Amino acid sequence: MASKVLILYYSRTGNTKQMAELVTEGARDAGGEVILKDVGDAKAEELLDYDAIVIGSPVYYGSMAGEIKKLLDESVKFHGQLEGKVGAAFSSSANIGGGNETTILDILDALLIHGMVVQGNSAGDHYGPVSIGAPDERVEKQCRVLGKRVVALTDKLK
Amino acid sequence: MASKVLILYYSRTGNTKQMAELVTEGARDAGGEVILKDVGDAKAEELLDYDAIVIGSPVYYGSMAGEIKKLLDESVKFHGQLEGKVGAAFSSSANIGGGNETTILDILDALLIHGMVVQGNSAGDHYGPVSIGAPDERVEKQCRVLGKRVVALTDKLK
Amino acid sequence: MASKVLILYYSRTGNTKQMAELVTEGARDAGGEVILKDVGDAKAEELLDYDAIVIGSPVYYGSMAGEIKKLLDESVKFHGQLEGKVGAAFSSSANIGGGNETTILDILDALLIHGMVVQGNSAGDHYGPVSIGAPDERVEKQCRVLGKRVVALTDKLK
Amino acid sequence: MASKVLILYYSRTGNTKQMAELVTEGARDAGGEVILKDVGDAKAEELLDYDAIVIGSPVYYGSMAGEIKKLLDESVKFHGQLEGKVGAAFSSSANIGGGNETTILDILDALLIHGMVVQGNSAGDHYGPVSIGAPDERVEKQCRVLGKRVVALTDKLK
Repeated sequence: MASKVLILYYSRTGNTKQMAELVTEGARDAGGEVILKDVGDAKAEELLDYDAIVIGSPVYYGSMAGEIKKLLDESVKFHGQLEGKVGAAFSSSANIGGGNETTILDILDALLIHGMVVQGNSAGDHYGPVSIGAPDERVEKQCRVLGKRVVALTDKLK
Repeated sequence: MASKVLILYYSRTGNTKQMAELVTEGARDAGGEVILKDVGDAKAEELLDYDAIVIGSPVYYGSMAGEIKKLLDESVKFHGQLEGKVGAAFSSSANIGGGNETTILDILDALLIHGMVVQGNSAGDHYGPVSIGAPDERVEKQCRVLGKRVVALTDKLK
Repeated sequence: MASKVLILYYSRTGNTKQMAELVTEGARDAGGEVILKDVGDAKAEELLDYDAIVIGSPVYYGSMAGEIKKLLDESVKFHGQLEGKVGAAFSSSANIGGGNETTILDILDALLIHGMVVQGNSAGDHYGPVSIGAPDERVEKQCRVLGKRVVALTDKLK
Repeated sequence: MASKVLILYYSRTGNTKQMAELVTEGARDAGGEVILKDVGDAKAEELLDYDAIVIGSPVYYGSMAGEIKKLLDESVKFHGQLEGKVGAAFSSSANIGGGNETTILDILDALLIHGMVVQGNSAGDHYGPVSIGAPDERVEKQCRVLGKRVVALTDKLK
C-alpha cells in the first residue's frame, strides 16, 4: 500500500506554495499518495490520517507562521498519536541569513516532540529545502528530492 | 527618566503568568516603569512604546504559543522600528527536557530579527528563566533577577 | 541480525558516562549489539561500522564538548556514508536552563547533516534525555527508554 | 577611550578570514580599536582584555569548528568575567541551507551563557553575516555593517 503523505503549507507570496507543489511532485514520483493543503483548509485532526507530514512555511521572525503554529498547538489534543510517523519541513524567505534554518528547525522540533521521525540530507539543503525568494532551479531540485526521500523513508518504516 | 518595560505573557495554567509577575517585581525594584499584560490584551503597535520588551510563554511543541507568535507576526508592519530596544524571554513547561530552552530561543530569535539587544546570564538560567511546573524558589529568584538585569541594561543603553 | 549501535560519550564528572551506560543497558535489553566508548578512545572512521550512533555530552557553553565536535569535524572525510543510519543524543549539565536542549540539538543537527534519521519522544524528554547533575530515577528511565527506541527504530529501517 | 574589539576566526579556505577582515574594517571605521586573530594564535584568557568579542567560523556540521569550541570550552576557568561584554558572530559555508544560521546561533548561545550582550540586525543578515562561498558584494556590506554596529553598541555600554 502506498505511503500516505500530507503536505501542508502557508503562503502569501506564492513562493512557499510553489515549493509545496514541487515537494508534492517528488513524493508522487516516488509512489506516494499525496494530499497538498493550505494550512487554512486543514484541521489538526487530519494529521492522524497520514504516514508522513511535511510542513512548509515562510520565515516570519525566524520561525513558522502563526497560522501553522496554531494548528500544531491544537494537535496537543491527540498528543502521542503521531509517534513514529515521518516528518519534514521547508521554508522560504526574502533574504539569505533571514531565518530559514531556524524556521525549518522550529517545525522539526515540533515534530520531534510528537515522537516523529525526521531525516536530514547529506547532499543538499541539510535540514530541509530553503528558498531565497521564488524557487530557482536549485530549490526545485531540493524540493523534489525531499518529496522522494520522505516517501522512501516512510515506505521503509511501514 | 525611568526605563519603560513591557512584560507580555500567555498563560493557561497560571504558571507563566506567575513568572511574569515575578519578573515585573524585579524590574520595578530596579526602578523600571513596568506594564504587565496578557498578550490577548495587547496590540502589536504597543511594542513601539517601550524601551524593553520581555515575553513569557508556556512551551507548546518546543516554541512560543501561537497567540504570541501571531502578535510578533503582526509586528512586521513596523519592522525596523524596534532596533536597539532591549529584549528578554522566559518559559514554563510540564517537564525537564520539554522544550523550555527552544521556546526561549525562539522568542529571542524573533527579537534579534527586530534588531533588538539581548543579554544572557552567566550565573543562572542562561538564556532566560525556565520553570518546570509552578515556579519554585529557584525560579522566583531567576525571574526577579531577569527583571533587574533588563532594567539595568536598558538604563545603560538609554 | 542484531542492530549494531555505537554509544559515544565524553564525561569528566561521570554523569554523562553513567547516562551512556544506562542507554547501553536499554539498547541491549532491546536486542541491540552495543559498543560503549569514551570519545577519546574512538576514531571517526568507526562511525561507519554501526547502524545507529548515539552521542552524549556534558553541556559546555550550550553545545557539545570540543572533544566530540573534533571527532564529528573529522567525519567530513567520509561525508555521505552515514546516510540513513539512526542517530540520537543526550546531555547532562549542572543546572536547569543551562543549555541541555541546545546541546542535544547541536548534536542532532550534525547527525541530520550526515543524512541520518532521528526520532523524538512524545512521552519523555522530547529531544533526548537530559540530566541535571547525577542521573536520578527519572533520568535512568529516560536513558533506558532511549536505548530501546533507538534499537526499535534501527530494526525497522534495516 | 575607544572600544576594544577582538575579532577571532578559524579559516581553511580563506572565506571566513576574508569576512573577518571586512568586519575589522567596519569596526575600525567606526572608531574601534580592533585586534584580528586566527583562533589558533589566541588564548582563552585574551577574551578578558576586550569590550567586545566577535567570532567567525566556517560551518562544520551545523556548528562552530572544533578549534573554536575548544577555546570557548577553556574559557570556563574565568566564567562570569565576560558578563556585560558585547558579542557577535558570522559564518561561511559552501551551500545555502548548509547550517550557517545554526553555526552563528551556536556561537551566540555560548556568548549568552557568558552573560554577554548580543544584537540582531533588522535590515540585513539578522543573526550575523552569512557567506555562501567567497564573500560577494552583499556579504562585504553585511560584514562591514556588523563591525560598525558592534562598536556602536559597545560605545553605548561603556
